[in-house]
Amino acid sequence: MEIPPVVIDRLPLYTRALASLEVQGREVISSQDLGTSLGVTPAQIRKDLSYFGRFGKQGRGYNVRKLLDELHRILGLDRQWRMALVGVGKLGRAILGYDGFRSQGFRIVEAFDVNPERVGRRVDNLTVRDATDLEPVLSKNPVDVGIVAVPAETAQDVIDVLIRCGVRAILNYAPIAARVPSGVYVKRIEPVLALQSMTYYLKNRPHAPIPTPRS
Amino acid sequence: MEIPPVVIDRLPLYTRALASLEVQGREVISSQDLGTSLGVTPAQIRKDLSYFGRFGKQGRGYNVRKLLDELHRILGLDRQWRMALVGVGKLGRAILGYDGFRSQGFRIVEAFDVNPERVGRRVDNLTVRDATDLEPVLSKNPVDVGIVAVPAETAQDVIDVLIRCGVRAILNYAPIAARVPSGVYVKRIEPVLALQSMTYYLKNRPHAPIPTPRS
Repeated sequence: MEIPPVVIDRLPLYTRALASLEVQGREVISSQDLGTSLGVTPAQIRKDLSYFGRFGKQGRGYNVRKLLDELHRILGLDRQWRMALVGVGKLGRAILGYDGFRSQGFRIVEAFDVNPERVGRRVDNLTVRDATDLEPVLSKNPVDVGIVAVPAETAQDVIDVLIRCGVRAILNYAPIAARVPSGVYVKRIEPVLALQSMTYYLKNRPHAPIPTPRS
Repeated sequence: MEIPPVVIDRLPLYTRALASLEVQGREVISSQDLGTSLGVTPAQIRKDLSYFGRFGKQGRGYNVRKLLDELHRILGLDRQWRMALVGVGKLGRAILGYDGFRSQGFRIVEAFDVNPERVGRRVDNLTVRDATDLEPVLSKNPVDVGIVAVPAETAQDVIDVLIRCGVRAILNYAPIAARVPSGVYVKRIEPVLALQSMTYYLKNRPHAPIPTPRS
């Protein structure tokens, strides 16, 4: 059965919430409480999880540890993922310095740039390699994920090379809609495009009062 | 007529592509060529634009400058947008240093943090303010957009305060599904959650060969 991508997109959120509950010492949680903490209805949570089997017992809630293990297994988070970064400018360096990847099992193992002033430099324990060496380097040491932090103009070319190197998941920081063959996955992480699709709504209702939720 | 959010999400991409064409000196472009450069079908482009009126003439393509102006007007990009950043840690400082916002009309005008060591410091021409002053500061100088770069645990509280201050668009870098009333817009920009929903697919087909596109 094909599972809807929106369901897959919600699972990492459930995982985060459960991990945080586990740290707090919670052993069991109801779909009601999990939903409240996430802004998702309990019915939605039950339906999403039902794609993957039966979790929890009617009226007794979910075992936090067990559900977390299952979600890790389902999402492939029970292993390490190797990533290559292309583009070590300001943005690329911020990505290299971001703590959130490694703690979640995502490790940047190679960094590339075209700028001769950057090639050969050490940045966060990696030596920046020449982007023209992408193919020989990644064919010897394959990675699972490519992080694209190059300007819009060269982003598609970089993505094409990454795909030729067998990369099947791309985190795209460039403001383009990447063209990829089926079987390759792209997530766009570009703040300005995200802002620009929100201003459409702000513009239409510039200062509409927001209903204050009663508490 | 309610325009589907996926259409609104594509318009900024069209805008980027057209701006780049204009820089290159192109005056007219066909939906065919625009589509090829974006990985979108020409029919999709024509359908998306048809929500907003008639652009271009049959068989003559779009006037790049005119369509760009129209899209700017539609998306509200013909004005400046004021933004407040909450969280001036490593991530927040990278956001403050990001060049892409200002050049597209998005200006960070206030920065807040809870950490006393950060409050009062100058970062990229802004003085970091105490996050407890969010309400008095933003009620005097309202902003359009809130950028949330705080840990997951406090992100919802920050978002609630921003909404009380009249903020109706949130760029959320924290790994939570924010709960917001209707009329408030949130875009989540969190790379690890994005990665975690791709690994689901990699895990299921770990080393499937990618069909090589014939060229």
